[in-house]
Amino acid sequence: MNEDRPFFSNLKCRECGRLYPKEAIHICEFDFGPLEAAYDYDAIRSSISRERITSRPQTMWRYREFLPIDGAPTVGAQVGFTPLVKADRLAAALGVKELYIKNDTVNYPTLSFKDRVVSVALSRARELGFKVVACASTGNLANSVAANAAAAGLRSYVLIPADLEQSKVLGSLVYGTNVIGIHGPYDQVNRLCSEIAGKYGWGFVNVNLRPYYAEGSKTMGFEIAEQLGWKLPRHTVVPMASGSLLTKIHKAYKEFIHTGIIEDQPFTIHGAQASGCSPISEAMKKQVEIVKPVPKPETIVKSLAIGTPADGYYAIRTMKDTGGSAEDVSDAEVIEGIRLLAEYAGIFAETAGGVTVASARKLIESGKIPRDESIVLCITGHGLKTAEAVQGKCGEPRLIKPSLREFEALVADEVAAAAN
Amino acid sequence: MNEDRPFFSNLKCRECGRLYPKEAIHICEFDFGPLEAAYDYDAIRSSISRERITSRPQTMWRYREFLPIDGAPTVGAQVGFTPLVKADRLAAALGVKELYIKNDTVNYPTLSFKDRVVSVALSRARELGFKVVACASTGNLANSVAANAAAAGLRSYVLIPADLEQSKVLGSLVYGTNVIGIHGPYDQVNRLCSEIAGKYGWGFVNVNLRPYYAEGSKTMGFEIAEQLGWKLPRHTVVPMASGSLLTKIHKAYKEFIHTGIIEDQPFTIHGAQASGCSPISEAMKKQVEIVKPVPKPETIVKSLAIGTPADGYYAIRTMKDTGGSAEDVSDAEVIEGIRLLAEYAGIFAETAGGVTVASARKLIESGKIPRDESIVLCITGHGLKTAEAVQGKCGEPRLIKPSLREFEALVADEVAAAAN
Repeated sequence: MNEDRPFFSNLKCRECGRLYPKEAIHICEFDFGPLEAAYDYDAIRSSISRERITSRPQTMWRYREFLPIDGAPTVGAQVGFTPLVKADRLAAALGVKELYIKNDTVNYPTLSFKDRVVSVALSRARELGFKVVACASTGNLANSVAANAAAAGLRSYVLIPADLEQSKVLGSLVYGTNVIGIHGPYDQVNRLCSEIAGKYGWGFVNVNLRPYYAEGSKTMGFEIAEQLGWKLPRHTVVPMASGSLLTKIHKAYKEFIHTGIIEDQPFTIHGAQASGCSPISEAMKKQVEIVKPVPKPETIVKSLAIGTPADGYYAIRTMKDTGGSAEDVSDAEVIEGIRLLAEYAGIFAETAGGVTVASARKLIESGKIPRDESIVLCITGHGLKTAEAVQGKCGEPRLIKPSLREFEALVADEVAAAAN
Repeated sequence: MNEDRPFFSNLKCRECGRLYPKEAIHICEFDFGPLEAAYDYDAIRSSISRERITSRPQTMWRYREFLPIDGAPTVGAQVGFTPLVKADRLAAALGVKELYIKNDTVNYPTLSFKDRVVSVALSRARELGFKVVACASTGNLANSVAANAAAAGLRSYVLIPADLEQSKVLGSLVYGTNVIGIHGPYDQVNRLCSEIAGKYGWGFVNVNLRPYYAEGSKTMGFEIAEQLGWKLPRHTVVPMASGSLLTKIHKAYKEFIHTGIIEDQPFTIHGAQASGCSPISEAMKKQVEIVKPVPKPETIVKSLAIGTPADGYYAIRTMKDTGGSAEDVSDAEVIEGIRLLAEYAGIFAETAGGVTVASARKLIESGKIPRDESIVLCITGHGLKTAEAVQGKCGEPRLIKPSLREFEALVADEVAAAAN
């Protein structure tokens, strides 16, 4: 396949632009800048078209010219193309005109956007000959590595903070992966993984395979543009952990413009965090580009609890370049955000989704997102993954015997009220 | 829309064939037979084609000529077209040649096949003017009614046995629906709902709207046929609660053959139950057509725990007509089934999925499914919905401090073993 579409050309230092071969490396030897996938956009431009894309199956791989593998995907071939849901009732509740939910709560196979990055990383891991794959994770990534590795027959190790949500731990264990719980916050897990990656020759999806892995997030942006009828939303609100997803949605929008898939048009990208771990949002609010680490995150939003965000600086640059803002919300607001999304759009999101909805609400109320401009909220994982966050906070069933009389007594008042 | 495609013509008694208008009724006044949607297949045949279907968005509504609503869907327009996954590693583990998983664990929006039936029922409920919708449910249906009603702005009541899995209760409450827990098994919940439906003028999706509701299950069959390249699997294994899904997959296959979408070809449909509530499987094994009720189901598979299955008789007829068999499995085998599917296909299913996999394994081992013929397993809901069934049964994380030395001590043996 490489012969007829050599679109993915190199790795390239994001700082100095130095080119590197397409290997399992992730840091520039000269300035320690992150390496990123680079493409031959002229070749892509002369090959790709809307028609070509739409003729392909509805998965994230319909944008394969923009993804950093050489051949056909061998892992996660059916991932992506999740619904973009026009949420009119939620729009009314938030007082805005045009609102969409990009719904990765139903992404295949493990109900989060991480299936996008993992299918790229593991497909590339196979091309590079790895037999064991691994990751540092706050939960979703571990679930996805475990499931996709199981389907592909790769051995896997997932390293997670020991105090993760029950469903996220179970959602890795069930696939028969090796789950290692680390006593410490995510940043310590990540640091340990950097040491391990160098020693064992394993494919760590978010360490030595990170340049490949990260590109998978672009597909969320490509899909949003296609599903809106080949145009961009005026505003996109993205949750931030490392900050990578936000920068990659930006890259996707720019690539579609650069290759002529969509017209040049204004767009703004906003970032959302939980106040208990909001280093990127803090820096944005203080108008600085240096992200001050949060040594001890304290929030129910464990999937975003990264105190030293690897792409924080680039996320800030992206928000600034597009005229965007960052916002952060308390744990109580997170729960409100989850409930708003469920009650008005019928979508049950994990805590990160609550962050996105609640932050969007703040951005709307403060005027940073005008009420008459189109908005997409990126909802990245399913609510059952963090069930304990809302358990006991959505009421309880009313209990009766199987008796019509008991039922009638129970609902009489509300039925009468509804009839008036 | 009715004018140019009057494909859905009537309701019709499944026993005597008497025709009824397309209203909120479900039982024949003369012989108490169930009413079913009837179509003008000649009109469908002259209108539909593979090309026409594939030109439409990848949702269950691409088969809309075969669905019983008059206009365009107003609820659940993005439901369906879940992945059909070729599961080669699981095939090898089960010792068969060609195996596929129809993966409704990632169905939009509530992670089970019930979103298919609910989107039809609620779209029809709106056409019929209902403002309040309701259901009797073992959990998945309640989740789907609650979510889809929330998105559509319909009031909803969901009635469930009081002892359901935690995630299934939460997965209804979060949408702000009215959850009523009934002290008693599902059959008593269902009986109560029949009494309520007559009195309140509500649209009960599986009582007075049942003829519309049930047709939604056909889309799982249509999708299987299309995704296999417009042909049928030789064997389809379907979990049975009321038995409805199995009969509707059969109807879908027959309709595709009858209207010329696919060629006439042999196919066999098998049913799967949990041994703690297996009235249909028991009847099949005893070669009788009378289903003996199970007054007190005892199984971890609550979603299939229907002691008096409404479509049991028709499920038996379907299996017999297609040369199929029924099988049932113990709770321990259910867990094994869940783990097999997770470890070899990377798909985490709820207990009903474990029933399907474990029953398929038995059918293969007993020779009822030949090892060299193609097989589709219908996996109907996500594993996080019944997490407690596998909690503590998939091992636990191994815990260490964030130290390379501790990590190396932990994995030294297995890394050495894997290297040899």
